[in-house]
Amino acid sequence: MVLQKFVKDSLTTMTELVLPNDTNTLNNLMGGKMMHWMDIVSAIAAQKHSNRIVVTASVDNVSFAQPIKLGNVVTLRAQVTRAFTSSMEVFIEVWGEDIPAGQRYISNKAFFTFVAMDQNGKPAHVPEVVPETEEEKALYASALRRRQLRLVLAGRMKPHDASELKALFELENPEV
Amino acid sequence: MVLQKFVKDSLTTMTELVLPNDTNTLNNLMGGKMMHWMDIVSAIAAQKHSNRIVVTASVDNVSFAQPIKLGNVVTLRAQVTRAFTSSMEVFIEVWGEDIPAGQRYISNKAFFTFVAMDQNGKPAHVPEVVPETEEEKALYASALRRRQLRLVLAGRMKPHDASELKALFELENPEV
Amino acid sequence: MVLQKFVKDSLTTMTELVLPNDTNTLNNLMGGKMMHWMDIVSAIAAQKHSNRIVVTASVDNVSFAQPIKLGNVVTLRAQVTRAFTSSMEVFIEVWGEDIPAGQRYISNKAFFTFVAMDQNGKPAHVPEVVPETEEEKALYASALRRRQLRLVLAGRMKPHDASELKALFELENPEV
Amino acid sequence: MVLQKFVKDSLTTMTELVLPNDTNTLNNLMGGKMMHWMDIVSAIAAQKHSNRIVVTASVDNVSFAQPIKLGNVVTLRAQVTRAFTSSMEVFIEVWGEDIPAGQRYISNKAFFTFVAMDQNGKPAHVPEVVPETEEEKALYASALRRRQLRLVLAGRMKPHDASELKALFELENPEV
Amino acid sequence: MVLQKFVKDSLTTMTELVLPNDTNTLNNLMGGKMMHWMDIVSAIAAQKHSNRIVVTASVDNVSFAQPIKLGNVVTLRAQVTRAFTSSMEVFIEVWGEDIPAGQRYISNKAFFTFVAMDQNGKPAHVPEVVPETEEEKALYASALRRRQLRLVLAGRMKPHDASELKALFELENPEV
Amino acid sequence: MVLQKFVKDSLTTMTELVLPNDTNTLNNLMGGKMMHWMDIVSAIAAQKHSNRIVVTASVDNVSFAQPIKLGNVVTLRAQVTRAFTSSMEVFIEVWGEDIPAGQRYISNKAFFTFVAMDQNGKPAHVPEVVPETEEEKALYASALRRRQLRLVLAGRMKPHDASELKALFELENPEV
Repeated sequence: MVLQKFVKDSLTTMTELVLPNDTNTLNNLMGGKMMHWMDIVSAIAAQKHSNRIVVTASVDNVSFAQPIKLGNVVTLRAQVTRAFTSSMEVFIEVWGEDIPAGQRYISNKAFFTFVAMDQNGKPAHVPEVVPETEEEKALYASALRRRQLRLVLAGRMKPHDASELKALFELENPEV
Repeated sequence: MVLQKFVKDSLTTMTELVLPNDTNTLNNLMGGKMMHWMDIVSAIAAQKHSNRIVVTASVDNVSFAQPIKLGNVVTLRAQVTRAFTSSMEVFIEVWGEDIPAGQRYISNKAFFTFVAMDQNGKPAHVPEVVPETEEEKALYASALRRRQLRLVLAGRMKPHDASELKALFELENPEV
Repeated sequence: MVLQKFVKDSLTTMTELVLPNDTNTLNNLMGGKMMHWMDIVSAIAAQKHSNRIVVTASVDNVSFAQPIKLGNVVTLRAQVTRAFTSSMEVFIEVWGEDIPAGQRYISNKAFFTFVAMDQNGKPAHVPEVVPETEEEKALYASALRRRQLRLVLAGRMKPHDASELKALFELENPEV
Repeated sequence: MVLQKFVKDSLTTMTELVLPNDTNTLNNLMGGKMMHWMDIVSAIAAQKHSNRIVVTASVDNVSFAQPIKLGNVVTLRAQVTRAFTSSMEVFIEVWGEDIPAGQRYISNKAFFTFVAMDQNGKPAHVPEVVPETEEEKALYASALRRRQLRLVLAGRMKPHDASELKALFELENPEV
Repeated sequence: MVLQKFVKDSLTTMTELVLPNDTNTLNNLMGGKMMHWMDIVSAIAAQKHSNRIVVTASVDNVSFAQPIKLGNVVTLRAQVTRAFTSSMEVFIEVWGEDIPAGQRYISNKAFFTFVAMDQNGKPAHVPEVVPETEEEKALYASALRRRQLRLVLAGRMKPHDASELKALFELENPEV
Repeated sequence: MVLQKFVKDSLTTMTELVLPNDTNTLNNLMGGKMMHWMDIVSAIAAQKHSNRIVVTASVDNVSFAQPIKLGNVVTLRAQVTRAFTSSMEVFIEVWGEDIPAGQRYISNKAFFTFVAMDQNGKPAHVPEVVPETEEEKALYASALRRRQLRLVLAGRMKPHDASELKALFELENPEV
C-alpha cells in the first residue's frame, strides 16, 4: 500500500444541472438533494485516496445560506483533508452558476467523513495525507478540532478531553 | 395565525424501501440518499407546524453507525422540537427493518433546521412549540444549546457568548 | 410461526411529496404513480404481518375522485384486514394535503392482495388476523365478499357460488 | 369535433426494459411499477381517441398471475374499447418476454377508465367508438357490464339497477 | 440457430411521455434523453433479431432538427436493417406528437449498431437479414456504405479502401 | 458580448457513479445512459462559452469500445473546440475508473454540436474560440472537416463541395 498521498490526488469535480424534480415549490434546489450529491462526490474523493470501497461515517454541520435555482449549474469540488487510521475527512465546496446571467456564487462548504473497508467489510488502513498548499495545510491542522467535535457530539469523547476543540472557544471567527 | 402548537401536531412518518439504486457496492443504503429522505420528512414536519413553505437552513452533525441493507424497510419519524421566530428545529429518528428476519434497529438521529417563508419569499413568523411529554420537554430545552452550536459553527456567534453551549462541556454524556 | 396477529401490527404509514415528474399536464398526480406508492406501502404492511417476502396478487377496483396537486403532501396508511392461508388483503387509505392552505382531503381507498413466499418461492402460510376495533371488524367481515368478487372476476369462481357477493346486491349503499 | 373514431385509431404500443429498481427482492417486476406503465400507455390511447388532456378515473380489478423477471422486455398494448359521453374505457394487454430464451408470455390484462378535459378543466365530450373486428365488438358490448360494476363499486349505482351486471351472474365463464 | 430472419421480426415500438425532468430550460426534450430512449428501443430490436444479449457498438451521426415539447408523446420505431457476422445495424425513426393539437411530426432518424454476445461475453454469430419491402431493401443496400463510414471514422479502414463510401460523394442528395 | 474566448473558459468536468439502473444485463453501463451524460456535460460547456441557453444540434458518430462496469466511476471532460456563428462544436472525453483496482481507462471520445438561443428562441451569435495549446489548435483546425461531414450527412451540403472532408480520404490515420 502507498503510505502517503497528496491532497490533489483525491481531487474530484462533479457538475450537475438542477432539474425540476430536484427543486422545492420555490424552484430552489432541495437541501437533501444537494447532500446526496455531496455524499457521492466526497465518497469518490475518499475512494481515490484509499483505493478502497468507502462508507459514509458522518456529516458535519452544514448550513444552506444561498439558494440555487432551477436550471442553474452546480459544481462540487471535493478533496481529502486528513486521514486517521482507516477514516478520511473530505472537504467539499459547492458553487451555483446561472450561466446565461454570468453569475457564479459560493453556495456551501461541508465536511464528510468516510471509513475505508477491506474485502471482508472490515475497516482498512489508508495512506496518510500530505498537504502542500497553505489552504491544504490549514485544513489539515483544523481537521483535528473538527474530529474532536464529532466525537463529542457522538458521545464518544468527553468535552473536557477535547483539547483542540477548546481552542475553538478562544478564537474570534473560527474557521470550522 | 395560531400562536402555539403541540409537538405532536407536526409528527410525520415516512416509509421507504431500499432499492438497488439507493445502495453502494456493499449493498448498503448510501448516506446521501438517507439525508435526502431526512430532508423531505423533516420539511413536511416543519410545513405542518408553520403552514408555510419552508427551506432547509442547516443540518446538524449526523453520524452513520448502523448500515441499512438493500431490500430493508426504512422508517423516518420527524417532529418539530422548538421554534425561534421564523425558524424551526426538527428532530428525526430513522429505523431500519429486515422484516423477514424480524429485525428492527435504530439507524440514525438527526436535527434539521428550516425557515418558514411568506408569499414574497421573506421569512415568516411561526407558532411557538408547546412540548408535552418528558422527551419533548428535554428536546425543547436542549434546542437552545444546539442552536448556539449552529451559530458558532456558522461564525455568527462568538463562542464565549454561547452560554448554553458551554454547559455541554460540563456534562458527562451530553445528549446533543 | 406466530399464529395470530393484530391488525395494528401491520400498520404502515408513508408520506410522499408530489414532484413535477409525478404529475400530468394539469399538474395533478398521475393515477399510475399513486398506484405505485399504494403497492409499496401495502407490500410493507403485508411483510409486517407475514414476516415474509410478498408478491402482489391483485388490485381491486380503484377510483380517482379527487385530484392531488403538485407540491401537495400525500399520506398513505395501510393495514392487513384479513388473511386467507397464504394470501393477505391490505386496506389502503390515501390523503392529499395542501399544508400552506391548511387543507387535508381523502383522496382514495383501495384494497391490494399479496401472497407470502417462502425461501423457495412457494406460497407460505401466514398468521390469522385478529381485528379489534369496530372498523377493523367490519373490514374483516366484508373481506370475504371482496375475495369472492376477485375470484369471480378472475374466472376462478362461478358467480352463483359467490354467496357473500350476492349480499352486495341486496344492500342500498354497500361499503365495498 | 370528429363524431366517431375506430378502435385502431387509439392503438398505442409501449416497450419497457425491467431494470433493477423496478423489481422486488425476488427480482420480479413490482406490481405497482407495472400499473404505472399501464396508466401511461392507456392515457396516451385515450388522448389519441379524444385529442384531449385526460385524467385517470378508475382502474378495474387487476390480477398478477405471471411474474416478469429482471432484464425481460415488457410490451404494453392499449386501445379504447368504448366511450361514454366524456369518459373512455381502455383495454390494456401486457406481455413479458425473455428474448435470449425465446419466451414470450401474456402477463396481464386490465381496463382503465379516463375522462377527457377541456381547456378549463371541465369534462369534454369525446367521439363515439366504432368497433370493427370481432374482438373489438365483444369488448364494446361487455364495456356496459364493466361500467355498471364500477358504478356499483363506487356506490353510485344500486346493484338491482345494474341490469347488465346481473348477466354476469348467469354466465359460466364470464369474460370480464 | 435460425439462419435468416425478416426485418419485421425485429420491429419494436416504444412510446414515451416527455416529463419535466426530461426537458431543458426551453421546455424541449433534451437530446441526451432521446438518445437514451433510442438506445433502449434499438437494443431490444437487436435482441429480437439475435435472441442474444447485445451491447451498443456505435451510434451514427444524429441531428436534432425539430424540438419535442414537454407533455408531448414520443414514438420510437426500430428495426434491424442488416447483419454483419456478429453485429447488427438498427434503423430508428422518432416521431413527436402534440395529441390535443392533433400534430404529429418526424423528429429524428438514426442508426445504432449492436454486437451480440454469447454466455461467455464473446461476440456471437447472428442470423442474416432478409429485406422484403422496397424501403427495407434500400436500407439493406446502403448499410454497407454506412458501415464503411463507421470504420473510416473509427480509424479501422483507410478511406481509399472504402469503395461504397466513395459513392456517397457522387450522389446529389445521398440518403445516409 | 465578449468577442473571443479561450478553450479553457468552457472546460467542464463531470463525475458519475455507475448505478444498477444504468447498466445492462452484463452489468455494463448502457450506451444510451453515457450519451445522456455526454449531452449534459457538453451542453454546460457550450453554455459557458456562449452565456446562452443552448440546444443540441447534432451528435457525431460515437463508438463504444471499452465497457464501463457497475460501481465504476465515470469522468467526462468537455470543452468547446470551435464556434461557427451561432453554433459550437464540443469535444468530450470519457474515462472509466475502477478505483479499488487502481485502473483508469479511456472509454470514449465524442463531438456534440450546440446552437445558442436568445430570449426569443432564435439562434444567437457566440464568441469566437481562441485555441492555445497544440491539441486545441489541432481540434480547431479539424473542426471544419467534421462540420462538412455533418452537413453532407444531413443532406445540406453536396459532397463535391466538401473541400476539407475530401482531405480525410487522403490521410492514413485521420483523427476524426
